[in-house]
Amino acid sequence: MDFNLAEGIAVLERTPHAFRALLDGLSPAWTDATEGPETWSPYVIVGHLIHAERTDWIPRAQIILAQGPQRRFTPYDRFAQFHESQGKTLAQLLDEFARLRSEGLTTLAGWRLTESQLDLQGEHPEFGAVSLRQLLATWVAHDLDHLVQISRVLAKLYSDEVGPWRAYLQGRWGRLGQQPWWRLSWTPRTD
Amino acid sequence: MDFNLAEGIAVLERTPHAFRALLDGLSPAWTDATEGPETWSPYVIVGHLIHAERTDWIPRAQIILAQGPQRRFTPYDRFAQFHESQGKTLAQLLDEFARLRSEGLTTLAGWRLTESQLDLQGEHPEFGAVSLRQLLATWVAHDLDHLVQISRVLAKLYSDEVGPWRAYLQGRWGRLGQQPWWRLSWTPRTD
Repeated sequence: MDFNLAEGIAVLERTPHAFRALLDGLSPAWTDATEGPETWSPYVIVGHLIHAERTDWIPRAQIILAQGPQRRFTPYDRFAQFHESQGKTLAQLLDEFARLRSEGLTTLAGWRLTESQLDLQGEHPEFGAVSLRQLLATWVAHDLDHLVQISRVLAKLYSDEVGPWRAYLQGRWGRLGQQPWWRLSWTPRTD
Repeated sequence: MDFNLAEGIAVLERTPHAFRALLDGLSPAWTDATEGPETWSPYVIVGHLIHAERTDWIPRAQIILAQGPQRRFTPYDRFAQFHESQGKTLAQLLDEFARLRSEGLTTLAGWRLTESQLDLQGEHPEFGAVSLRQLLATWVAHDLDHLVQISRVLAKLYSDEVGPWRAYLQGRWGRLGQQPWWRLSWTPRTD
């Protein structure tokens, strides 16, 4: 599917509400759970999304649009949330994410971007030249990837609790070299 | 994490709202997309969730609680949604799912289940003996698995649009034998 600004924005408008609908009010048994050492909990992930709103998407778009002599992005800190989220409840983080997203989308709408502006480029610290179109598509995909991740973290907490249904569900989760579960789910059989 | 009825219900109350927050109003370019032949779109998946509300979770729990001579579950039809959803908009399906879920949780709450009732068993057509506790845990995990799936279907639509960021994102998606992306995401580097 080709990137389309209006359709990309439609997702970006919705994801903060999806995160809130899923997570707000759940007990820490769910929201502080991880997939093991050095993996992230839903709480940590929401902090990561906030930091990206503040320092990544709109600031990088501004660098690209300015087309100044210095178009290299500031490297993104993947661990900022471990100190920035301190002392905040998940409910506060979910509100903050929704507020920052709304502000970012207002800024984006105000630019009234043209197709040729979407082709303008900045310099990624590792990849080199990237276009504004690619940056905005990544903003969308990044949200969705973290929704995949959070849903998976929660689902895996019941890996054992489901008992024999694990045979149907496990392909969807942890094992490396697993059969893709959407094939499993297509297999005509009872469950 | 051990199954806990109140914490399981907390997820079941939230997931229909998360599906709606994510999907309601998105264009068919998103909601009718699949991961390839014989895989399911978000629209199809919501129909599948509805059919499970009607025929799987509560009806099977009723069979277990009755402890009658016939405790064998009716096999679940994984393809019912292909005819049952016909003529309905996604908005209608999302509303129907939320309504059925709410009714199901009202029924569940009315049972005031005890720990010993959670250990009662029914007969799965393939697995044999399964407990009410396992059935209810599977209800939760099944919702979350399909939220994983829908988010992944949407994210993959921008696999190419993200350009060089694909190097960071692709581990999270399609490839078989892929490195688990939560390890990728931990690698300290700029993005």
